[in-house]
Amino acid sequence: MATVRDICVAAGFNVATAVAFLLAFAFLRLQPVNDRVYFPKWYLKGMRDSPSSAGAAVTKYVNIDWRSYFKFLSWIPAALMMPEEELIEHAGLDSVIYLRIYRTGLKIFVPITILAFAILVPVNWTNDALEGLKVVQSDIDKLSLSNVPYGSKRFIAHVVMAYAFTFWTCYVLLKEYEIVTTMRLSFLASEKRRPDQFTVLVRNIPPDPDESVSELVEHFFLVNHPDHYLKNQVVYNANKLADLVEKKKKMRNWLDYYLLKFERKSKRPTTKTGWLGCFGSDVDAIDYYKSEIEKIGKEEAEERKKVMKDPKSIMPAAFVSFRSRWGAAVCAQTQQTSNPTTWLTEWAPEPRDVYWNNLSIPFVSLTVRRLIIAVAFFFLIFFYVVPIAFVQALANIEGIEKALPFLEPLIERPTIKSFIQGFLPGIVLKIFLIVLPTILMYMSQFEGLISQSSLERRTASKYFIFLFFNVFLGSILTGSALEQLKTYLHQSANEIPRTFGVAVPMKATFFITYVMVDGWSGVALEITRIRAFVIFHLKNWFLVKTEKDREEAMDPGSICFYWSEPRIQLYFLLGLVYAPVTPLLLPFILVFFALAYVVYRHQIINVYNQRYESGAQFWPQVHLRIIVALIVSQLLLLGLLSTKGLEEATPALLVLPVLTIWFHKYCKNRFEPAFVRNPIQEAMKKDILERAREPNFDLKSYLADAYLHPVFKSDEVDKFFVADDPGAEEVIVPTKRHSRRTTPVPSVQSKQDGSDRLLLPESVIER
Amino acid sequence: MATVRDICVAAGFNVATAVAFLLAFAFLRLQPVNDRVYFPKWYLKGMRDSPSSAGAAVTKYVNIDWRSYFKFLSWIPAALMMPEEELIEHAGLDSVIYLRIYRTGLKIFVPITILAFAILVPVNWTNDALEGLKVVQSDIDKLSLSNVPYGSKRFIAHVVMAYAFTFWTCYVLLKEYEIVTTMRLSFLASEKRRPDQFTVLVRNIPPDPDESVSELVEHFFLVNHPDHYLKNQVVYNANKLADLVEKKKKMRNWLDYYLLKFERKSKRPTTKTGWLGCFGSDVDAIDYYKSEIEKIGKEEAEERKKVMKDPKSIMPAAFVSFRSRWGAAVCAQTQQTSNPTTWLTEWAPEPRDVYWNNLSIPFVSLTVRRLIIAVAFFFLIFFYVVPIAFVQALANIEGIEKALPFLEPLIERPTIKSFIQGFLPGIVLKIFLIVLPTILMYMSQFEGLISQSSLERRTASKYFIFLFFNVFLGSILTGSALEQLKTYLHQSANEIPRTFGVAVPMKATFFITYVMVDGWSGVALEITRIRAFVIFHLKNWFLVKTEKDREEAMDPGSICFYWSEPRIQLYFLLGLVYAPVTPLLLPFILVFFALAYVVYRHQIINVYNQRYESGAQFWPQVHLRIIVALIVSQLLLLGLLSTKGLEEATPALLVLPVLTIWFHKYCKNRFEPAFVRNPIQEAMKKDILERAREPNFDLKSYLADAYLHPVFKSDEVDKFFVADDPGAEEVIVPTKRHSRRTTPVPSVQSKQDGSDRLLLPESVIER
Repeated sequence: MATVRDICVAAGFNVATAVAFLLAFAFLRLQPVNDRVYFPKWYLKGMRDSPSSAGAAVTKYVNIDWRSYFKFLSWIPAALMMPEEELIEHAGLDSVIYLRIYRTGLKIFVPITILAFAILVPVNWTNDALEGLKVVQSDIDKLSLSNVPYGSKRFIAHVVMAYAFTFWTCYVLLKEYEIVTTMRLSFLASEKRRPDQFTVLVRNIPPDPDESVSELVEHFFLVNHPDHYLKNQVVYNANKLADLVEKKKKMRNWLDYYLLKFERKSKRPTTKTGWLGCFGSDVDAIDYYKSEIEKIGKEEAEERKKVMKDPKSIMPAAFVSFRSRWGAAVCAQTQQTSNPTTWLTEWAPEPRDVYWNNLSIPFVSLTVRRLIIAVAFFFLIFFYVVPIAFVQALANIEGIEKALPFLEPLIERPTIKSFIQGFLPGIVLKIFLIVLPTILMYMSQFEGLISQSSLERRTASKYFIFLFFNVFLGSILTGSALEQLKTYLHQSANEIPRTFGVAVPMKATFFITYVMVDGWSGVALEITRIRAFVIFHLKNWFLVKTEKDREEAMDPGSICFYWSEPRIQLYFLLGLVYAPVTPLLLPFILVFFALAYVVYRHQIINVYNQRYESGAQFWPQVHLRIIVALIVSQLLLLGLLSTKGLEEATPALLVLPVLTIWFHKYCKNRFEPAFVRNPIQEAMKKDILERAREPNFDLKSYLADAYLHPVFKSDEVDKFFVADDPGAEEVIVPTKRHSRRTTPVPSVQSKQDGSDRLLLPESVIER
Repeated sequence: MATVRDICVAAGFNVATAVAFLLAFAFLRLQPVNDRVYFPKWYLKGMRDSPSSAGAAVTKYVNIDWRSYFKFLSWIPAALMMPEEELIEHAGLDSVIYLRIYRTGLKIFVPITILAFAILVPVNWTNDALEGLKVVQSDIDKLSLSNVPYGSKRFIAHVVMAYAFTFWTCYVLLKEYEIVTTMRLSFLASEKRRPDQFTVLVRNIPPDPDESVSELVEHFFLVNHPDHYLKNQVVYNANKLADLVEKKKKMRNWLDYYLLKFERKSKRPTTKTGWLGCFGSDVDAIDYYKSEIEKIGKEEAEERKKVMKDPKSIMPAAFVSFRSRWGAAVCAQTQQTSNPTTWLTEWAPEPRDVYWNNLSIPFVSLTVRRLIIAVAFFFLIFFYVVPIAFVQALANIEGIEKALPFLEPLIERPTIKSFIQGFLPGIVLKIFLIVLPTILMYMSQFEGLISQSSLERRTASKYFIFLFFNVFLGSILTGSALEQLKTYLHQSANEIPRTFGVAVPMKATFFITYVMVDGWSGVALEITRIRAFVIFHLKNWFLVKTEKDREEAMDPGSICFYWSEPRIQLYFLLGLVYAPVTPLLLPFILVFFALAYVVYRHQIINVYNQRYESGAQFWPQVHLRIIVALIVSQLLLLGLLSTKGLEEATPALLVLPVLTIWFHKYCKNRFEPAFVRNPIQEAMKKDILERAREPNFDLKSYLADAYLHPVFKSDEVDKFFVADDPGAEEVIVPTKRHSRRTTPVPSVQSKQDGSDRLLLPESVIER
């Protein structure tokens, strides 16, 4: 077991790491040469220009204003200062609600921490159950529930606190759900005209031998929604074309690279025709890529013709637009025919949110795919435990000494030993988890979801389930399993809460280090943007010729919801589980939430550029997962206390999960529809307003190309540079030129963000 | 354990009982005096007149045509002869689909029985595992899986058969779901105009200080469904008024009774004013009831005024009617406002299907009520086990001998012993179960469902869960528990399939007797209609003066879905569980399904009068419960085989529940929407047809009073005798006068049934 000293060493190390990262960030962000790495959002919004345009050559790369270095922490108040409404306009509702998750964490855990330290810590501390035992225990356990002797009446305090924590958490969740719902509704209400408000995605259109898909759709909706139908846009199977376009783009990149090389060295560069330019015969690189581009260009043109003409490349799906939001709301929410597997209608996602590849999957295939993924996911969860357990077994001191005996003299030094014990298990787990979300994302894509946002949400669910079983339960049990394997292996299902509950206090130190490594250092690392930093400077060095190239080299990134949200949930889980057991863990989690809130707020303001806007559709999931964490914490406490000799505890604690599940049901009924369906009244309101304001608006031409496959559009962008934006006429006062080179599809929303608002206060942009 | 002899005695006894009931029925139904007991449906449809109108005095009461007695089984082919389409018109879709449950049972179990007897019985029989054991085993077990020795490869046959049974069951279920869905859709499509096609029930209308509910509703829908809104009918809280009307009716009954008594005895009867006429002072009965009726009549008139005028008696709910089915379909399926707990819309149930008392329950109250019922139901299931276990413990021979030692010499006689063992446990269980559905129905009513049909469905779910835990699992375990209590009590959750699985073969004889008592004799008892028979003749003797009275005394009854369907499901469960274990049970179940099918078909044709028509909305539940039975059977077989030493069995059998659950999900997605939602296309089709046929139809007056509280209508019925039927103008050729004295609300559907079709072939009416 780790001692207080181990914890302190680990904490010291992690604080040092975090501070180092923060200092590095504070220094790097002040250098003009890094401006595009740390403030890309402002460039994308057209509100910041390259520093190269003004001043001397030195100031172009290095900040020589020594006074600015004294204010190296000034980004923190700046990040916190932007008001919420402005932030919604600046970065979208998704980002703002994402930040709310951290705030919810603070709201839940600040009072819980205070309560736990005021009541539970004294109750635990003033016992000496552990001293009587012969087992070597850590000092930390003196603060935990383990220190209260068997059968003590003091456990009543823990039961009462479990009630208090549950009620407080539910209260905060209720309030947050209310607020988020209100924000979503007012966000939707305040939105400008958007194609998806008028559009419904129709899938599984039954084949008709006599009519084309477009005609069939037109006839069907003219009959069944006669007053509302406007137009339809069939979906092309342009996956092959998209591949070609992608390939051509890569070739062009290489051509640019060699042209630049030629310019600098004045010697025609050569390349090899084989794989990655490593094999095959030498050729002149510039000529080779030019001819390749020409070849692909021809192929592409042919494919493009084929796709547009061949009826086989038209999928049995279409985007159907209506004259009014009311008509679209009605069509999206109703069942069209008596066969519920054909003519499936649902809200069209935002154009840039559509996941095009999945639009044509038929109904039966969908259910089969879901079964396959369910089974595969089960095995992934189940067998992933093996390597983690193996590596964690290595990552304890005795394991390393056995595996590599020559290291023994080094490891046995107290500082190094503490370091390994504190740091290694966390980092091992971390590496494991980095590749995983991508696999899970592929699995979700295979399932056939049709929007990026739903893909991210589905992947987030999977990832959370994985983290719960493999990181949380896996760490509690396999760690213990190595000590008490045989006792545990053959235990039965209803003993599980007890088995896990008993192991919970023993794992407190492990999770404290985990919070520090993953939470503190991880968040501090995020703000330095190491990866984007390196890539930008590499590109800048090798590829960038013009200002336009530099803009393209910039990678703002975005909040990876499917990757980051489940990890936040792990902290909720840890906090709720340890609140009544080992309150010492809580401050560490508080620090994480506070730090992460500031860092991500800064990143959202200055860096990230969201790929789509779902209007906080993920909140019901966030809510659900906190509820799950709460129930798990109740069950584990139940299991733990059932071994402590207070018989009244079990029935008293059994009430909690029942009430929590009921609370969840209530919230689900009360709030969830606002995230799924579109109320008729709201649609009607907007319709009426709009008809009064712009009675002669030409909706048909506004919607003309909104839901065309991006590959047809990106081509136009190539040709005409300025995107053929269907919503162009709608922008009344375009104050800035907007670059949207990094978003594959020109987005109406981000454009509006830019056009509708004026400059931000300088204090926020602050440099 | 029961022996083959016990089974034979029990079978003999039950067959005798059943045959006796059937003979009694065959005799009684031929007597003209019982005509209204056994053919009330035809009277209600106006296609049969009282036999009193023709012939001599004797033939009025007794059938003296001796030839007719020879054909005493003629009702069976007659019941089977009516074609399905005609039966739908005659009795509604609900009844026909209800019969399909029995047919599904036959379809599933006939091939399973054949397979099991062809393969499993020889496999089991040709072993001698049981002979080696010292435990006294029944001969029946030689046919069961228990007879195969530990570790035998013969268990592969059982695993393969489990696969075969699962696939066959799923195949039948799929086909049946398809057929039922098609039938429902064509039934809905062929329906005549009905008020509920145009009407939506709106609940939880938010209070408005400035407007009445009716105005508020009108304004809301004129704004949000401007082209479709027609009218609304607010809901009155007329519960008190309904009580008064009911009370007055009772008083009038008593008055009739005393008037008749006076007529016969020519002496003014007296009664007492106190409780049930047993206490208090003597008064002249006729005067007393006349004055009472007058008093209540005044009260009623006042209350009626109050309800109509007082805004407090108007509930925040309304029936909103639309100009077209399309408008109603849209409104019912969409969310109206951004707050999903107000302006809740759903399809209005048929007028006679509405459960008026629950229309005004607010949203929060609903969720609280659901929690309360969930907890109460849990305790009901949990603590009901105690009395059943107690009584069953008494109901075995040793228990009785211990409790009542003086009975020992009697009981120990072999025939009586067999009789008790065979008959008693079943009858004990049966008595327990008679009161239960009523309690469960009250619980469902408390939950706040708003239609009779949904109440019945919800109660059926509860009842099935109860039967599953307390009859099925309870009988398997507590019976065994008395023998092996201590072994079982402290076992853990994942051992449960094994514990139950092992006990399954031991309980085969018990369930065989249960099937005979509950199934065979119960069904035969049903056809004799003992209760209705007695009540009708009592009423006929004491109360009936006129033909109209006699019509009122007639009680056709109806299929009690919530009471009978879960019990059928118990047979599915028994059949599926015992198919691979003790195939001997299957023929008993087949006999039940066949007998019940014939009996209920007869009853539906000649007796029952459905109170409402839901269009087979219960089928998804029927399907779900058979799936549950299938999964339970798989798990129990898994548990049983895991103790038999064939290690490959467990993974092979684990695949089955996964596939079954997936199959259920597929079916749910594919078919269930047809039972819940109303497709736009169908609505549009009917609208267009109707507009073409009757362009000038006055829908508003047609819908005028359709959704008025029945208490206001029954009053009109009282006053004018002929109901003020809002759909009267729609009947084009009313060929018969229809009595609907027994249905509280005049029903458009039943009227249409009568008016649209001509006489049935005489062979069906057959007498």
